[in-house]
Amino acid sequence: MINNKNIKIVSSGCYLPKCISSSEIEINNNIPKGWSEKYNGVKNRHHVTFETNGYMGARAIESALEKSDLHLSDIDLIISAGASFDYILPNQSSTIKSELKYGVSYNIPGIDIDTTCLSFMTSFDIASKMMDGYQYKNIIIVASEVASKGLNGNNFETATLFGDGAAAIILSFDSDNKSSYIKGSTKTYSEGVFDTIIKGGGVKYYFKDHSYDPELHSFQMNGRKLLKLAKREMNNFTVDFFNDIDYSMDDVDIVVPHQASKIGLELFKKMYSIDAGKIMSNIESHGNCIAASIPLIIHQSIHQNKLKRGDLCLLIGTSAGFSIGASLFRY
Amino acid sequence: MINNKNIKIVSSGCYLPKCISSSEIEINNNIPKGWSEKYNGVKNRHHVTFETNGYMGARAIESALEKSDLHLSDIDLIISAGASFDYILPNQSSTIKSELKYGVSYNIPGIDIDTTCLSFMTSFDIASKMMDGYQYKNIIIVASEVASKGLNGNNFETATLFGDGAAAIILSFDSDNKSSYIKGSTKTYSEGVFDTIIKGGGVKYYFKDHSYDPELHSFQMNGRKLLKLAKREMNNFTVDFFNDIDYSMDDVDIVVPHQASKIGLELFKKMYSIDAGKIMSNIESHGNCIAASIPLIIHQSIHQNKLKRGDLCLLIGTSAGFSIGASLFRY
Repeated sequence: MINNKNIKIVSSGCYLPKCISSSEIEINNNIPKGWSEKYNGVKNRHHVTFETNGYMGARAIESALEKSDLHLSDIDLIISAGASFDYILPNQSSTIKSELKYGVSYNIPGIDIDTTCLSFMTSFDIASKMMDGYQYKNIIIVASEVASKGLNGNNFETATLFGDGAAAIILSFDSDNKSSYIKGSTKTYSEGVFDTIIKGGGVKYYFKDHSYDPELHSFQMNGRKLLKLAKREMNNFTVDFFNDIDYSMDDVDIVVPHQASKIGLELFKKMYSIDAGKIMSNIESHGNCIAASIPLIIHQSIHQNKLKRGDLCLLIGTSAGFSIGASLFRY
Repeated sequence: MINNKNIKIVSSGCYLPKCISSSEIEINNNIPKGWSEKYNGVKNRHHVTFETNGYMGARAIESALEKSDLHLSDIDLIISAGASFDYILPNQSSTIKSELKYGVSYNIPGIDIDTTCLSFMTSFDIASKMMDGYQYKNIIIVASEVASKGLNGNNFETATLFGDGAAAIILSFDSDNKSSYIKGSTKTYSEGVFDTIIKGGGVKYYFKDHSYDPELHSFQMNGRKLLKLAKREMNNFTVDFFNDIDYSMDDVDIVVPHQASKIGLELFKKMYSIDAGKIMSNIESHGNCIAASIPLIIHQSIHQNKLKRGDLCLLIGTSAGFSIGASLFRY
């Protein structure tokens, strides 16, 4: 049986680099005027100028801490959730921690968790399982993503879709049991494994042997095939997800889908008869921020009073690999 | 209080690519004859020829499955534990799963966990917390590492130290409670954050802007500073580790230290009065295989009957970041 875990989001923070409009990107890359908004639904997104994942992640954490009653010394673990990274070595959580004000003063461990776009969701699930009120009482999950470096201006679809940014969520063990983490689940459909890919830069096409080439080192996506796979599997996945818990999709107060693409979000709305007002989105103003999209929306929904204490919140989305995942929690 | 978790290593497997002797590496890189064995204690290691992390990881998992009573359909989760990766996107666990025989037939989710050299240890800890006998009954942890691509022949210390390889461990929920996972803990000392680094290839020095340069894109280590840090912190770390559990270092039957370096292993032996016969090592025959070192030794110790059912086993080591970590389990 699925056991609720007494875990509560106590505060959140974010960092966004410079805003860049679609018309600016369209002019820079000879993309027809209006293409981004029409096909991707993206008017604005943020792209780094000087920032790294470490810089943005540290600022997002500091902002979340400021809004809480906690000090860095209260934190038992920092999970860095994401697909992009400042260095191949050391890992991202170590870099983010070292860039925190007073980060060197505390020996807080860090873990990097990567399930690409669903990394925040996976980290939330894992944090809920680690949280025991003893060794782990307060855990920070930070998703800091720089997508803009891996974009190819010749590929209209991806060049206009992605944004950069960071969001941090502080989770605490909640003995009151009003807030809780209910369930997380992911399924991986390997027939789509290479339909979202950055081919170069790893062991397979090592940069020593394969110098920079926008085709090899940029994000590529077979959107049509992925959409077909999602269409085929989403419904079964959701039925299974709700099968062994005391809730149904109708009980959900607020849905935070990963901001994969405009067409993906539309498919989601079509497949489920959920009141459109319950489905959160920031793709128009932020684009797809990889693993930072979901926690950014959580942060924004809290501050816009759309996600309220006691609300049942569903996180759901797809990721490279190809996976479908969902998490249910009571805020 | 720390709670034991009913978790059991049911089988293990490994894959090793072609063996390469120190004299071969010394000749190829104009390193004085005998340097590797004298300074690093490494006679042989394995380096990939055609293999990727995906290939090696899949073969290690297949080997572990063959030795168990389990079929791939029994597996609830695949954790890829490591610092090297085939592609920036998708994540490594997705790639490994897709390369498994029948991997496409099952929708097993995957998670990548990266705490650099301690990734296996962290994954074991997380797996023990996820294992509930319901949603998670059988979890595979696979550490597949290709270190050889990131080596600079001009840097004698690192060029001769690292090896490639993969090991997989299958964990099962064990209601008999004879085997158990007892405790895991890590501390990160950020003053050493950049003393183990591969500078290029990530967001900070992106390959679009920084073409291949052996200095920028190879592994660099400030061994002297790290050793000083380890010397200062190891003892406090170990005292804290055993402080809230019913065991002491004397109760440990077998120690599996990360194979960081010859000098690191010697320091470890000097600091603790542990019978040398209890401390496992394969650095002479395998070098430092990043996160694969610890599970490779676990696998080899099981098959050499050095790790026996009921033994109390301590995993311990340091990692880039700079972190010290340990895990205690009853095999």
